[in-house]
Amino acid sequence: MKNIILTGDRPTGNLHLGHYVGSLKKRVELQEEGNFDRFYIMVADTQALTDNANNIDKVKNNLIQVVIDYISAGIDPNKVTIFIQSRVPELAEMTTYFMNLVTLSRLQRNPTIKEEIKHRGFENSLPIGFINYPVSQAADILAFGATIVPVGEDQLPMIEQTNEILNSFNYTYKPKEEIFAKPKAIIPQDKICGRLPGLDGKVKMSKSAGNAIYLCDDEATVKQKIMSAYTDPDHIRVNDPGKLEGNIVFAYLDAFANDAHFEKYLPEYKNLDELKAHYTRGGLGDVKVKLFLNNVINELLTPIRKRREECLKHINELYEMLFENSLIASAHARETLNKMKDAMGLNYEKLLNN
Amino acid sequence: MKNIILTGDRPTGNLHLGHYVGSLKKRVELQEEGNFDRFYIMVADTQALTDNANNIDKVKNNLIQVVIDYISAGIDPNKVTIFIQSRVPELAEMTTYFMNLVTLSRLQRNPTIKEEIKHRGFENSLPIGFINYPVSQAADILAFGATIVPVGEDQLPMIEQTNEILNSFNYTYKPKEEIFAKPKAIIPQDKICGRLPGLDGKVKMSKSAGNAIYLCDDEATVKQKIMSAYTDPDHIRVNDPGKLEGNIVFAYLDAFANDAHFEKYLPEYKNLDELKAHYTRGGLGDVKVKLFLNNVINELLTPIRKRREECLKHINELYEMLFENSLIASAHARETLNKMKDAMGLNYEKLLNN
Repeated sequence: MKNIILTGDRPTGNLHLGHYVGSLKKRVELQEEGNFDRFYIMVADTQALTDNANNIDKVKNNLIQVVIDYISAGIDPNKVTIFIQSRVPELAEMTTYFMNLVTLSRLQRNPTIKEEIKHRGFENSLPIGFINYPVSQAADILAFGATIVPVGEDQLPMIEQTNEILNSFNYTYKPKEEIFAKPKAIIPQDKICGRLPGLDGKVKMSKSAGNAIYLCDDEATVKQKIMSAYTDPDHIRVNDPGKLEGNIVFAYLDAFANDAHFEKYLPEYKNLDELKAHYTRGGLGDVKVKLFLNNVINELLTPIRKRREECLKHINELYEMLFENSLIASAHARETLNKMKDAMGLNYEKLLNN
Repeated sequence: MKNIILTGDRPTGNLHLGHYVGSLKKRVELQEEGNFDRFYIMVADTQALTDNANNIDKVKNNLIQVVIDYISAGIDPNKVTIFIQSRVPELAEMTTYFMNLVTLSRLQRNPTIKEEIKHRGFENSLPIGFINYPVSQAADILAFGATIVPVGEDQLPMIEQTNEILNSFNYTYKPKEEIFAKPKAIIPQDKICGRLPGLDGKVKMSKSAGNAIYLCDDEATVKQKIMSAYTDPDHIRVNDPGKLEGNIVFAYLDAFANDAHFEKYLPEYKNLDELKAHYTRGGLGDVKVKLFLNNVINELLTPIRKRREECLKHINELYEMLFENSLIASAHARETLNKMKDAMGLNYEKLLNN
């Protein structure tokens, strides 16, 4: 039994700290643990088009940006196969066959899809491609025999749908040997459950809300964003006691600060608990905490920025790496598709009499 | 401007006289007129799966049967490119991109789809692949730049859908040069409007109703079927006047009999009008008319049966012809797909700096 990891992103914008905490960090850890036979990261341009058909430039231009974000964040293309979804045509074929095994009403009941249809205001203009994306996502997962699929909690219904399709295929076509691996979701187990709030205090860091710190933000931008972050609106004077709940600066410190940061940038406190205690009893100003957070974030982002600069000098090579890796991914998917067609009896060569 | 003809069938059963009158005859005529740059006939196995996922053997086994029917009926594989849909993977990719341009509610309003969903009793278990088949059919038509699409009248909404997708693609991605040809439907203009009634008097000859004469039926079978065909239930004695409306034997004579047939098999009448006149005024028995029809049908089927026998000796060669032709079709579709990807900006090679 092989360990195959599959994950990916829609290339619709640069990646931010929310992505870092929610998935990138975990991916780098998985990469370093090395406990896999193959590790795929898919840049899901085809999937991005399901709700960006009118916005193709966004997808096209962000593709390389997302890849730069990956590598800047520590993904090593020598260890991880980063590839482009639209360059694996087998996925479209697999999707076609899976589409006959899934009812429209099942897709309409998919909680993720329901939520996203609402979120996008798609009620009356829902593209068939969008409602079908769980099926195409199942093809992504099953094509590569992914056993480990790191996802956000909101994506769990997608894994369920994938397993249903797997079972339905096996039930319908009764392959002589197992074609698909059973995928297992892994969900971020951080203190903040993999979901970083936005700078403005909103539940989620997101591009559309304009409340995100990007991996590609420079020092001045990060500082300006942190200094304007939402804290405790009742904490007006330094001496006022401050609240931690809903305080974004402390939420970020929860996610990013460790004891070594204190030793280096704020030695008067041993750790985050001491800082929190001082803040809640009063006498600690927001600016001091924010400047500390700024140091913590910059320590994280400095090497990322440095790797980004390197990447920017090698755009052509990055594309070529993607093209080559996509061929590897395509060959892997073709193997699976071929087994599927065998099971379905669509490999008509087998009907020839010798 | 090129003339490209595209047509095809789902391989779900042998072809019968209804297919012959409704489409095969016209195809052979088009082939003999030779007024085309390319003439494709697609055996739509992938499409057949949209409502036969559980019935794959039917599709698999009928594929070669349908091809034998084509060739037996006079289609010349040296003039017409007969190919297998599932061997043109580009169609699945094109479908994926088109799916982002068509809303679910538009497909639900498609009259053909509505009718077929009802007909198949799919109300609550409608596969997403089935409701999507107009999109995949648009890909079939647009992939090959088909300008002429011979279809039944009930398929006209499909051509309309294809034109909508064509316009939507052009509007959305604004290709610098025209990618797609505008397809034009041609509809059978026979006396019986291309729809042959069933032997039992039902509106349509169909496999499921068991009321069809197949191109592969032998002489004895054809005779037995014709002798049991529905005529005029009130025409009990020879001397009774007979009715022509709803009389299947005369409907078939309308479709197949000509003056030469009378000279050869029933010289006491000059033509069908004289025969009809005698029948309606009384004094002409059903058996005599049926035996004449049997002669007419056998004259049509004898050369078809002979070609079928030849085909059956060369099954391997037929498959190999299909495989080769599918490569030709695939190359043509790839050209179109590539232009689509150019327009969409998905050919990332173009972003490389030299």
